[in-house]
Amino acid sequence: MDHHLSQRASTAQRSAIRELLALTEKPEIISFGGGLPAPETFPHEELADLAAELIRTQYAKVLQYGATEGSVTLRDEVVRWLAPQGVFVTREELLITTASQQGLDLLAKAFIDPGDVVFCGLPTYLGAIQAFRMFQTDLVGVPLEDDGMNLDRLEERIAETRKEGKRAKAVYVVPDFQNPSGITMSRAKRERLLDIARREDLLIFEDDPYGQLRFAGEPIPSICSLDTEGRVILLLTFSKVLAAGLRLAAIVARAPLMDPLVVAKQAADLCTSKLTQHLAAHYMKRCGLEQHLQTIRSVYRVKRDAMVAALERYMPQHEGISWTHPDGGLFLWVRLPEGLDTGEMFHRAIEHNVAYVTGSAFYVDGGGKNTMRLSYSVVTEEQIDEGIKRLAALVREELAKLGARQAVA
Amino acid sequence: MDHHLSQRASTAQRSAIRELLALTEKPEIISFGGGLPAPETFPHEELADLAAELIRTQYAKVLQYGATEGSVTLRDEVVRWLAPQGVFVTREELLITTASQQGLDLLAKAFIDPGDVVFCGLPTYLGAIQAFRMFQTDLVGVPLEDDGMNLDRLEERIAETRKEGKRAKAVYVVPDFQNPSGITMSRAKRERLLDIARREDLLIFEDDPYGQLRFAGEPIPSICSLDTEGRVILLLTFSKVLAAGLRLAAIVARAPLMDPLVVAKQAADLCTSKLTQHLAAHYMKRCGLEQHLQTIRSVYRVKRDAMVAALERYMPQHEGISWTHPDGGLFLWVRLPEGLDTGEMFHRAIEHNVAYVTGSAFYVDGGGKNTMRLSYSVVTEEQIDEGIKRLAALVREELAKLGARQAVA
Repeated sequence: MDHHLSQRASTAQRSAIRELLALTEKPEIISFGGGLPAPETFPHEELADLAAELIRTQYAKVLQYGATEGSVTLRDEVVRWLAPQGVFVTREELLITTASQQGLDLLAKAFIDPGDVVFCGLPTYLGAIQAFRMFQTDLVGVPLEDDGMNLDRLEERIAETRKEGKRAKAVYVVPDFQNPSGITMSRAKRERLLDIARREDLLIFEDDPYGQLRFAGEPIPSICSLDTEGRVILLLTFSKVLAAGLRLAAIVARAPLMDPLVVAKQAADLCTSKLTQHLAAHYMKRCGLEQHLQTIRSVYRVKRDAMVAALERYMPQHEGISWTHPDGGLFLWVRLPEGLDTGEMFHRAIEHNVAYVTGSAFYVDGGGKNTMRLSYSVVTEEQIDEGIKRLAALVREELAKLGARQAVA
Repeated sequence: MDHHLSQRASTAQRSAIRELLALTEKPEIISFGGGLPAPETFPHEELADLAAELIRTQYAKVLQYGATEGSVTLRDEVVRWLAPQGVFVTREELLITTASQQGLDLLAKAFIDPGDVVFCGLPTYLGAIQAFRMFQTDLVGVPLEDDGMNLDRLEERIAETRKEGKRAKAVYVVPDFQNPSGITMSRAKRERLLDIARREDLLIFEDDPYGQLRFAGEPIPSICSLDTEGRVILLLTFSKVLAAGLRLAAIVARAPLMDPLVVAKQAADLCTSKLTQHLAAHYMKRCGLEQHLQTIRSVYRVKRDAMVAALERYMPQHEGISWTHPDGGLFLWVRLPEGLDTGEMFHRAIEHNVAYVTGSAFYVDGGGKNTMRLSYSVVTEEQIDEGIKRLAALVREELAKLGARQAVA
């Protein structure tokens, strides 16, 4: 029956991460693989009470179909939440989505024709790669530096795209504590990116799942908050600030770009669950997110500190080995010397009872073979220490083998 | 910013129903418009207790990300639920979706290239039209008869499609109590449709939201249960048998067709809410669906009876006026004499404080102007009686005007 598949389905691939993670489920393995939020950050007591109360007293509303745009109650809470972040929107400029992955799907649906070019980081969030590729987007990678995307290289890539007669459509960025790298884009680069987008008439897809999870350094305004033209579409999510299992997120878009997103959302799932929407809205009303966020931030800060300390303690001293020091979020990025391949190493890592995500999964150009993503979110400090010790032992072995290979050659 | 839209977004239209329904929100209007399930059929006490219990005791599971295919607990319950319906599946042949509208979106994503032909009823469910059109499907309409799609006409349409060099891909059907018409496809036609699909190498997309809501007549096996080749993909939903607000449904597909659906689902929203999945699964485990379904069926039977009785009582005697007598589901279909246009009449209906959905919204060929969909699901017996009285008064006026126009002509 394979001949019935659409072209997009014939070329689509399952997530490499997903396949690898299936290997890491043995209890003896310490996994830095999955990007799951820490369950201790879910405010479950409050949500349990709210769920019972909402279903019991408002069942005709919360168990029913709702508006495609999202419930007014939730959108009004999001409006209030965004204002102190410098993002001033009306209810009509918000679309509630079934998690941010749907937001990415809707962006592709509404704005991408096959062959359109979207520029993205090297590395880039895998879910975005999948969503855009499903619509036959031509993803063009631009290297990341310590302060975000290399914008000189972006300008070169745009010029090349124009020269090849392709249609440059948008830049996709995760400016705060990027998944997978943990890198944050500087304010200067955010402003220059806006200038470039204006000059080149590009949209900016700003994906911000982690911005509220800053546990060090000073907040930097979102690109959306600096935008005066309505060129930036911002994706927010409740997955990391409340609970991933609610599958709840929002898109901020100004009027001319919002309409096609709403139409696409209607065809995609009619509306997001009223139950999960009202759970989030009433949680925000009753408890506010800010107090809860302080707890979450301190949970992740402790874990990030533990991971950085363990890397410093155990990793071999080698000029080719480095890692990022994220000021927030869930991820840290390790670079190994050229010649090591984290994909090839993966099965040996499993033998060492430690797991990571291979970096190449996040590269649209096939690069990144010597990189890996480590998540510190769902492991304990003790597991972090022990897991990094195991990882360092593996890296030491691999370096020795590499040395032997290079000596022979 | 309009030039940034994709081709599919430029041609996509908002749901006509949705725009019309916005007019019907005045409290004095009796609306037969929306296709919402009756809120009194939501087992809210049980769901309230379960929600609190699940969130309190299993928060690390139900508030977390889950598998793309859906939770094992829910899929196993669905396997057990389907067997007595003659649909024998394994857990791996089930994909949990974020409501059936997502199922339609995934079908289009996985199987449709722009210009591919899908055959559908005249009339057809509007959400399916939207989902398929979003992927530039060429929808070819085939008239419905009292016992389902006219299959002679289907064969003619297939032959024409081949002659035009287009790719005939699938037939989309809602065999039980179709939305919008309330029509059920006979067993003989289900078998012949399978024969045609086999001979012509077509897929069958069988959408079954209402099959379990039969309140009269004998059940007819689903097309999926008669299929021996894995050519039928079946869509089920919890929206009408449990609660629409959960946004929960399932796709049944055999191995070679399941894989691209899973990949498409992953790119669409990663996974469906674990919370809503576990709510449904534990409700099924604890209470079973069958007892609850008996309550739902009697609710809708009473309402259907009230609507049929009111139509017989109030509608003018006219050979051009007829309506369907559904044996289940939420909808009834009224045909008015040629020359009347339910779209043109709509604003006068609002003046009469009664609302319906214009039939033409469900016709992919621009037809059906003299038809309307009436839903009896969320109105009381008293409202049904009064609303149909108002509708009949309107039809009488329109017939008089039509008579006057025809006398002049």
